[in-house]
Amino acid sequence: MFNKYMYELGSRRSTIRELYEFGKRRAEVLGADSVFDFSIGNPSVPAPKKVRTTLVRLSLEQNSTAVHGYTSAQGLAEVRSKLAESLNQRFHTAIRPDNIYLTCGASSGLAITIKAMNEKSDEFVVLAPYFPEYEVYIKAAGGKVVSVPFVEGFLPDLGALEDAITPHTKAIIINSPNNPSGVVYSAAVLSSIASIVSRKADEFEHPIYVISDEPYRELVYDGVEVPFVMNYFNNCVICYSFSKSLSLPGERIGYVAVNPKADFGGELYSAIMGAGRALGYVCAPAIFQQVIGACCDVLPNLSSYSANRDALYSMLTEIGFECTLPSGAFYLFVKAPNGDSMEFSERAKEYGLLIVPGDDFMAKGYCRIAYCVDRDMIARSAVGFKELFQSYQGKR
Amino acid sequence: MFNKYMYELGSRRSTIRELYEFGKRRAEVLGADSVFDFSIGNPSVPAPKKVRTTLVRLSLEQNSTAVHGYTSAQGLAEVRSKLAESLNQRFHTAIRPDNIYLTCGASSGLAITIKAMNEKSDEFVVLAPYFPEYEVYIKAAGGKVVSVPFVEGFLPDLGALEDAITPHTKAIIINSPNNPSGVVYSAAVLSSIASIVSRKADEFEHPIYVISDEPYRELVYDGVEVPFVMNYFNNCVICYSFSKSLSLPGERIGYVAVNPKADFGGELYSAIMGAGRALGYVCAPAIFQQVIGACCDVLPNLSSYSANRDALYSMLTEIGFECTLPSGAFYLFVKAPNGDSMEFSERAKEYGLLIVPGDDFMAKGYCRIAYCVDRDMIARSAVGFKELFQSYQGKR
Repeated sequence: MFNKYMYELGSRRSTIRELYEFGKRRAEVLGADSVFDFSIGNPSVPAPKKVRTTLVRLSLEQNSTAVHGYTSAQGLAEVRSKLAESLNQRFHTAIRPDNIYLTCGASSGLAITIKAMNEKSDEFVVLAPYFPEYEVYIKAAGGKVVSVPFVEGFLPDLGALEDAITPHTKAIIINSPNNPSGVVYSAAVLSSIASIVSRKADEFEHPIYVISDEPYRELVYDGVEVPFVMNYFNNCVICYSFSKSLSLPGERIGYVAVNPKADFGGELYSAIMGAGRALGYVCAPAIFQQVIGACCDVLPNLSSYSANRDALYSMLTEIGFECTLPSGAFYLFVKAPNGDSMEFSERAKEYGLLIVPGDDFMAKGYCRIAYCVDRDMIARSAVGFKELFQSYQGKR
Repeated sequence: MFNKYMYELGSRRSTIRELYEFGKRRAEVLGADSVFDFSIGNPSVPAPKKVRTTLVRLSLEQNSTAVHGYTSAQGLAEVRSKLAESLNQRFHTAIRPDNIYLTCGASSGLAITIKAMNEKSDEFVVLAPYFPEYEVYIKAAGGKVVSVPFVEGFLPDLGALEDAITPHTKAIIINSPNNPSGVVYSAAVLSSIASIVSRKADEFEHPIYVISDEPYRELVYDGVEVPFVMNYFNNCVICYSFSKSLSLPGERIGYVAVNPKADFGGELYSAIMGAGRALGYVCAPAIFQQVIGACCDVLPNLSSYSANRDALYSMLTEIGFECTLPSGAFYLFVKAPNGDSMEFSERAKEYGLLIVPGDDFMAKGYCRIAYCVDRDMIARSAVGFKELFQSYQGKR
């Protein structure tokens, strides 16, 4: 009766949602203290003070119809100017306000960009491990998903990437700092990808675009620098969100920026505007457009996430779990002791530990632990993780 | 290189946008006082006080991560409860919270609902005059637009409607109070449509849905009552927006409500959830979810629009223009003196009057005048309208 794929998407409960429901039931029976929810990437540090004072100032402004009125579809010109200026200053780019299109977060930016690009079953290459919604946006736009496996350190298998690019490849999605692994692609990795992409584009005689999904760009630790992806690919579109950096995930505010050096960049920007319109986006939330204009240079409180990461990593490795210390985002990827991540996540639930199997991220054998949580919960979870680990030892 | 239809949508400037740009240029040359912009449906009354105090209260709340965090995809349960309660009380329905899905305004609700419904080139019937974006949402989802002309009083031609419904018809879009005509469908009109739809559904042995686009539901004058469309069609989905009723068009907040009596209603709701996800909507803006929960029973200040309508209608009819007194929304449809609405709109520009030709709304021969403007501007525009009218007399 209705669209089959949409029905499937809406009726199939996500793993994270299942975990959440399980946690709620357990909390009712055993008390909230016996649930350790590491499943969701909801920032645990409050929005910066400047965000809140700006919101209050705007809410009180006399001219309410101007504050809450429609903006142009691209977003307020003065906000796009500020964003361009901020990016250019930080990353030595030459982005113009008319390269920027404000969106309802990075997810809408991705859905819009893919819809804008796909002509007829074009191929979009995704690099495991990756955010499962990429597949949804690609399929909904009528495109084809081509997945590339990872090697040691959750980095893309470059040989497989080269093979994955065909004459039908429209774009490659890059996500660094990465959800779910927390890995940051180094300049060397990006350069290697760039040389493959450029070689293939020459071979097939058409541009291959890079869609850089970077909501975690500002979330890195130990002074690690995140190379700015646009500086490695002329044919690049950034999808950014202020969800994580300004702790505003529910407010849906972000932007798409088309590299001013991109081939057919003007056409691409127009197609993005058209896709935004076609998917029902009239404009990004108006008051938050102004908020990000005022706060785009405010950096998040990283000390809390950094301390959480250190506490969690030490605790897990001391117990005996295998994991890589993440450089960015707020996720840690831990190896399932017997290699079966679905079973690992299931068994963890018995100890009240809610962790997401990597299977959804095309990374079987690992589970994602979101450490954007109260520090205290990490400490209290140690007993459970220890028992969980021991349960595997017993069975060996 | 990119999606052709998306590119066209994004590069073709809309008529309203063209008018806006013209107005800006004219204002620079002749001064702002010589531009009378009646083109845009941006509310001219400020947001109600309760909206602003709620916003400030939430912005100051200690628990910022809860206020600005992700909500469930459907929207906050307590807000959906309040909306259901409010609708049930006002319209004697039995809507449950899980029939409601919060959206980024009515536009996103429409795009999502159509995407959810369309299987394979299904037909969607639209009743002229209609909002041109309906065609965009239908085509973007892969559906087919079937347009029904209007008769006297901008009401649908019922014979043509009957002929337009085929075995491929998935839904009919109803928009009352109507943009652009301001007409409110009476109970008798809705009953006539309902009996046609029900007869055709029986004939073709499958449900035909009604999508009711009702952002102007609360904007009616002279005590006119807007019959609640859902009470006339079991197979009905409402797309509502608080853009007009709470003067929040830029903030993108509204909802979809599936009639609890709808055939396959649960499946439809799931498909709507799936389509929302597939189009990149993660959730409706979180703080505004709470704002509408608190303010859903606040009514707009109608006295301003009502006085504008009366002033404009009197002025135009006294000059000699033909128009119908609108019962709702904030638009007045005026007849082009020589029947050519494109030329009428062009000629009006010479007098600084920005009015939108009905051609885009499938209503050639008329122009839309948005009267959500300063009262003062209406008075000052009289000279221009008079000269505009006389220019036609001279040429006859």
